[in-house]
Amino acid sequence: MYQPKHQLFQFNIDFNPYQFMQKYSFATLISSYQGEIEINQIPFVIDQDNDQLLGHLARTNPHWQHLTQADDVKVFFNGPDAYISPNWYQQPKQNVPTWNYVSLEVSGKVSLMSDQELIDQLAQLSQIHESTLETPWTIDLLEPKQLDRMCQAIVGIKISIDRINSKAKLSQNKSVAELKHLIEGLASQTESDNSQQIRHWMQTQNGC
Amino acid sequence: MYQPKHQLFQFNIDFNPYQFMQKYSFATLISSYQGEIEINQIPFVIDQDNDQLLGHLARTNPHWQHLTQADDVKVFFNGPDAYISPNWYQQPKQNVPTWNYVSLEVSGKVSLMSDQELIDQLAQLSQIHESTLETPWTIDLLEPKQLDRMCQAIVGIKISIDRINSKAKLSQNKSVAELKHLIEGLASQTESDNSQQIRHWMQTQNGC
Repeated sequence: MYQPKHQLFQFNIDFNPYQFMQKYSFATLISSYQGEIEINQIPFVIDQDNDQLLGHLARTNPHWQHLTQADDVKVFFNGPDAYISPNWYQQPKQNVPTWNYVSLEVSGKVSLMSDQELIDQLAQLSQIHESTLETPWTIDLLEPKQLDRMCQAIVGIKISIDRINSKAKLSQNKSVAELKHLIEGLASQTESDNSQQIRHWMQTQNGC
Repeated sequence: MYQPKHQLFQFNIDFNPYQFMQKYSFATLISSYQGEIEINQIPFVIDQDNDQLLGHLARTNPHWQHLTQADDVKVFFNGPDAYISPNWYQQPKQNVPTWNYVSLEVSGKVSLMSDQELIDQLAQLSQIHESTLETPWTIDLLEPKQLDRMCQAIVGIKISIDRINSKAKLSQNKSVAELKHLIEGLASQTESDNSQQIRHWMQTQNGC
């Protein structure tokens, strides 16, 4: 991901990349192998040392077979994004349309999980996503035979978090006065959840 | 993107891939060049013959320099996604967690735009995104000097739509009775816009 020389499109110092990955955990797994790009979307969890991304693919999905020998592997976490109209600035004739967004990419190497690591990952995954539900479903509700069948049908992958690259394009190159106008403009887009989320990111990251 | 042998995770016959690309037009441009993956997010428009994706990058972003010689180029359009709890099925002990989502990838070759093509793309882009606003901003509000400065700072790209690959993972492998339970479950996630969008996709694609 490109970061312009002015380096303004970065998150502020309070930004926690691991929290971002947790929040936008249904991510895009991208690899290049013999020149070809392969893409699949899967939910990830982070290991307790913040060293690895943990996920799984269907065993019938050929993607996992190329991952350990891939030339490059990236996991892309998409945050929200929103169109910014020049009309929202104080001087619409002095400005051009743009797009604000937040996203993060991890580069790393892939290895395959053991059977126990896979079960642990599945337990952690359901624990996280069931935590906000009224009566959380847990993996131990499954009969051993079913759990075994499920594990046979998938392949667990671990991706080392070798490099994190993030981008917060949130109009940091504009004055505080202009930022307030943009925030008002986004607030007027009441039907767009994305615009409201970007508004929130602009407020917390730019302190306004 | 992996499509399992049962081929159920496809959109129904009413699906229009070009409408999907228009709706989720802020997409992820991914290329592999000399083994390395490069990723940037940009808004795309489709040319009038549905032959090409049109976009632009900052001239200072080195990504455009590799695009015409890339080994592979894909544009990934992310639709919404949502966690599906086993608790929502009639038999929670017979089911496992899953994730539903809709997305689409385009594979193609990249060429660079002429100055006029770039201006046309910018005009089309603002026309589309300003169309829902009260007083649409148009590119001709800019003074010729400003427009010229803007065009100097960016590089227009055209990507041939050689192959479209889409995925609609919307529980099509479940019975209509179970689908109704899942739709209720998603409806209960009132704070998640993503869950409501997936619910809508499940209803329109599965006809329930």
